[in-house]
Amino acid sequence: MKELKDRIRRDGVIKAGNVLKVDSFLNHQMDIGLFEQIGQEFKRRFADAKVNKILTIEASGIGIACVVAQSFHVPVVFAKKTQTKNIAGEVYTTQVESYTHGRIYDVIVAKEFLGKGDKVLLIDDFLANGKALEGLAKLVEDSGAELVGAGIVIEKGFQVGGQLLRSKGIRIESLAIVEQMDETTGTIVFKGDERDGE
Amino acid sequence: MKELKDRIRRDGVIKAGNVLKVDSFLNHQMDIGLFEQIGQEFKRRFADAKVNKILTIEASGIGIACVVAQSFHVPVVFAKKTQTKNIAGEVYTTQVESYTHGRIYDVIVAKEFLGKGDKVLLIDDFLANGKALEGLAKLVEDSGAELVGAGIVIEKGFQVGGQLLRSKGIRIESLAIVEQMDETTGTIVFKGDERDGE
Repeated sequence: MKELKDRIRRDGVIKAGNVLKVDSFLNHQMDIGLFEQIGQEFKRRFADAKVNKILTIEASGIGIACVVAQSFHVPVVFAKKTQTKNIAGEVYTTQVESYTHGRIYDVIVAKEFLGKGDKVLLIDDFLANGKALEGLAKLVEDSGAELVGAGIVIEKGFQVGGQLLRSKGIRIESLAIVEQMDETTGTIVFKGDERDGE
Repeated sequence: MKELKDRIRRDGVIKAGNVLKVDSFLNHQMDIGLFEQIGQEFKRRFADAKVNKILTIEASGIGIACVVAQSFHVPVVFAKKTQTKNIAGEVYTTQVESYTHGRIYDVIVAKEFLGKGDKVLLIDDFLANGKALEGLAKLVEDSGAELVGAGIVIEKGFQVGGQLLRSKGIRIESLAIVEQMDETTGTIVFKGDERDGE
């Protein structure tokens, strides 16, 4: 998605440790007009999939998922990272290791909001080691719902997550796949750069 | 807002301890069509306010804020509850006590995304004891931005938050103010019920 890649090149900041900061438009401050374009692109890619529910994980996936959901006209469910008083006892649960936070979370979805008959699209801002997406896929599987795929805004193609999940047969659509990034020069190479002139 | 009150009466569940569960449409599963109506109503109420940024707090405020932002054509910033590797050192910070989780959070916003010249509308799903909103208002004040008010989906009128914040001169617009709710009968009385036939 050219607008997205251009925006990452313009406003993204590469930091030590393979960190790509895009918090000026994606996951701290959020450019809602860009999210609308992202939603239209996911709708185009998953037009055939009869999605009837979007599942994401708190926190930075939620805003993107809600705007994307407008293109699909479906509700969003977000998986929560800890059990709170407001969640009933009946939940699907799994554990997710967070690369960013360096800890393991319990991730839960109330059973009443996911189940047989649902055709679920996962949405998240990043795919790196794939742990969050793997956890969401497990929740969908446990619920008896059908996983139609995952829509990812930025995939770090040099980390294992994309390969891991695709090898399990999960359809992954990433709008920008970073193949290389260089902290010292600030340059980013996206998959497809050489092919389509993006 | 009649559609919202009707929805709360239909799908909300009253639990012991003054808990109003609305997680089938507001803060776990999210009805994006309803969020669009909520956005239009906040835009109507804050039409004069020249809002150029929306500030919310993770996690359940984010989805609402992003859809509301479409009515205002402004970016959203969400305050984060813990310091992560992806946030630069330069942050505004305050502490917020969570009623739901029974603990105190550090809440942060990167300085580059909030400051002088910003006219900020706060958006959140609930106003109860007001601690989260008070924290967000402090971040806005610390940044030198102007706080134009707060748009709240559901206010618990029998808790102190609304009175506390209004007494500080903050403009609060709540789309549904619960005055009483009864766990045994499942009945909810909203402010304005007797006046406007809602």
